[in-house]
Amino acid sequence: MFKINENYLKLPGSYLFSTVGRKEREYKSAHPDKKVIKLSIGDVTQPIAPTIIKAMHAAVDEMGNAATFHGYAPDLGYEFLRKAIADGDYKTRGVDIAIDEIFVSDGAKCDSSNIQEILGLDNRIAVGDPVYPVYVDSNVMAGRAGDYNSTTGTWSNVIYMPCKEENNFAPELPKEVPDIIYLCFPNNPTGATINKTELQKWVDYANEHKSLIIYDAAYEAYISDADVPHTIYECDGAKTCAIELKSFSKNAGFTGVRLGYTVIPKELECDGVKLNALWARRHGTKYNGAPYIVQRAGEAVYSEAGKAELKEQVAYYMKNAKVIKDGLKNAGYSVSGGVNAPYIWLKTIDGMTSWEFFDYVLENANVVGTPGSGFGPSGEGYFRLTAFGTYENTVEAIERMKKIIK
Amino acid sequence: MFKINENYLKLPGSYLFSTVGRKEREYKSAHPDKKVIKLSIGDVTQPIAPTIIKAMHAAVDEMGNAATFHGYAPDLGYEFLRKAIADGDYKTRGVDIAIDEIFVSDGAKCDSSNIQEILGLDNRIAVGDPVYPVYVDSNVMAGRAGDYNSTTGTWSNVIYMPCKEENNFAPELPKEVPDIIYLCFPNNPTGATINKTELQKWVDYANEHKSLIIYDAAYEAYISDADVPHTIYECDGAKTCAIELKSFSKNAGFTGVRLGYTVIPKELECDGVKLNALWARRHGTKYNGAPYIVQRAGEAVYSEAGKAELKEQVAYYMKNAKVIKDGLKNAGYSVSGGVNAPYIWLKTIDGMTSWEFFDYVLENANVVGTPGSGFGPSGEGYFRLTAFGTYENTVEAIERMKKIIK
Repeated sequence: MFKINENYLKLPGSYLFSTVGRKEREYKSAHPDKKVIKLSIGDVTQPIAPTIIKAMHAAVDEMGNAATFHGYAPDLGYEFLRKAIADGDYKTRGVDIAIDEIFVSDGAKCDSSNIQEILGLDNRIAVGDPVYPVYVDSNVMAGRAGDYNSTTGTWSNVIYMPCKEENNFAPELPKEVPDIIYLCFPNNPTGATINKTELQKWVDYANEHKSLIIYDAAYEAYISDADVPHTIYECDGAKTCAIELKSFSKNAGFTGVRLGYTVIPKELECDGVKLNALWARRHGTKYNGAPYIVQRAGEAVYSEAGKAELKEQVAYYMKNAKVIKDGLKNAGYSVSGGVNAPYIWLKTIDGMTSWEFFDYVLENANVVGTPGSGFGPSGEGYFRLTAFGTYENTVEAIERMKKIIK
Repeated sequence: MFKINENYLKLPGSYLFSTVGRKEREYKSAHPDKKVIKLSIGDVTQPIAPTIIKAMHAAVDEMGNAATFHGYAPDLGYEFLRKAIADGDYKTRGVDIAIDEIFVSDGAKCDSSNIQEILGLDNRIAVGDPVYPVYVDSNVMAGRAGDYNSTTGTWSNVIYMPCKEENNFAPELPKEVPDIIYLCFPNNPTGATINKTELQKWVDYANEHKSLIIYDAAYEAYISDADVPHTIYECDGAKTCAIELKSFSKNAGFTGVRLGYTVIPKELECDGVKLNALWARRHGTKYNGAPYIVQRAGEAVYSEAGKAELKEQVAYYMKNAKVIKDGLKNAGYSVSGGVNAPYIWLKTIDGMTSWEFFDYVLENANVVGTPGSGFGPSGEGYFRLTAFGTYENTVEAIERMKKIIK
């Protein structure tokens, strides 16, 4: 008789964004006259840049011609893309990453949830709190998280690193040493980041304790401060302790195009076994490559024309971030993030819980945000807004939110 | 200190097709004057059909315009595609599959390797022998296969169902009852298939013993005999015991486009838990949808024009299959498959092992095939050829192979 994976039954309720979506739909159907503005899920609104569209059309044509048709892609991704990544994202930062240390995938969500598969079930993970839910949920499914405590909203075998006002929403080195540390800078959901000196401390800590850092750099394109690292490999020794995850979703608007990559340096070993080889084996066995058309789109991201267009796109969203941050701050809200990141993290008002504030804002300002508590217990009392809306909607949403603060 | 997943270390050597590729490259570099013809890996050679190319261009244009841009896709896939699948692949066969029983993905390789994640580690799997290596390898990685015996080429906790000449290369109901049964019809690698009466026996067996069937129907488009089922749900009771996997790689040439889907009926339960809900949770947590452009390409597969074009494409490959099968048979080879499937399964000559024959054919006919032993111990002494080459190359390859049989 077959048995299911019982770990799935431990997962509480539904995925955060499903609940947000359901509440939004219910409100809209009860109030069809209201114009609801969505600043919740981190989905982009700007179309794909012209240079990338051109590259995709060209690739589609190639696929329609026997002489230029492309079947199965190389396991790690096409060399043209991996070379563009090595040059564009690393060499420019003075970091030397070989093309066989880069694994092209269909997105950072898959990579950040799949990466734990090459690691033993007896590892103990540490996550920031609040945190992108996928890191924890994928470990719950694998059986690494222990049991859920519905009162505290925590898992028995997970080390939580609280990110609160007093530490500028950046985690501190944990006292209890974790085997695996998930770090995300610029951070989702808080929009916080840390400078190179601070990140170096994490790298040193990991090397000292033989912990593995899984570094999610999905929001790297939004960094504007000079002392904030764009890749963990800017830090000395990171190649022996860190895996880096990157996304094309936010820097190039690929949420519906699907492309990402993972870097595993060959120096990264555990008892003489290279993690690079394990991930290569997983790619070869459980994955079949990102579409050729999408890999060509990714290559265009690194072209001169592509870079110029995407710089404008990032600037567009960061203008929104400024509208949100400055607008709410001036109205009396307590706000952080939104400088090197497209997320604004604000404190609820009048001691409301995150979900109370969610309902309050939805009903009174017709704006949808994301309850901070959905990202972990330390997110309780906070609320996330994204800069990925249109400029017009963002301005209107903030005007409405100004009016509902008492 | 972090630990790796030790199960990976149990995997013997490299992935079958990597070894085939390496041997081919080595031969080519030693003999640059020879024209090597590849009938090994199941990759297609015909370009994407015009109607699908048109749909992709239109979708690319939509992505370049703010008003028609598409970000994150719905978790299960766009409704337009799931409706086309439900109508085109099931309703036409008299099978009623609801659109929320269909999960769109980036390919059947991912689905067939990921599906085991929603099942407990204490399940015992059964596979045909020979078999597509991904079923076993993904279970090895998860820790469900036991230990590898390099003498027998088998895993201690896997039930093998030999597919040999005496049973027409179709597995028989196992005496020892497995929890999970992987079936693939039309079969990769043998090209064998079974009729509806025979498949009904598997469904009845699974329901009786509460075993789960994972049914890989990737090659369904190649079926020509009227009594061979196109989907397992043509059998009574299959909805309570079977998951079905489908690919667009072979019926529409999507090996480089990447699209597949999995069907999990809502009737399929284990102790009251719906597997549909577990897979939905996995999709929501570990996956982020197939690209919008690719899902529109998938939709075009079911259009009247698309169907007509793809019927021609399948006929093209099946003409190759006939060239291979008839040509080799007339020359004195012992051959099977190639009627309802794009694979031809032939016996090596003079008692050679599969790899000896691989080398013999590569050196003497400059043709690359796949050694049967790479698919499992019962594949020893066999060799797989695919019909996915061009017609001209296929004819030439078979002329050469005729000359090397003594």
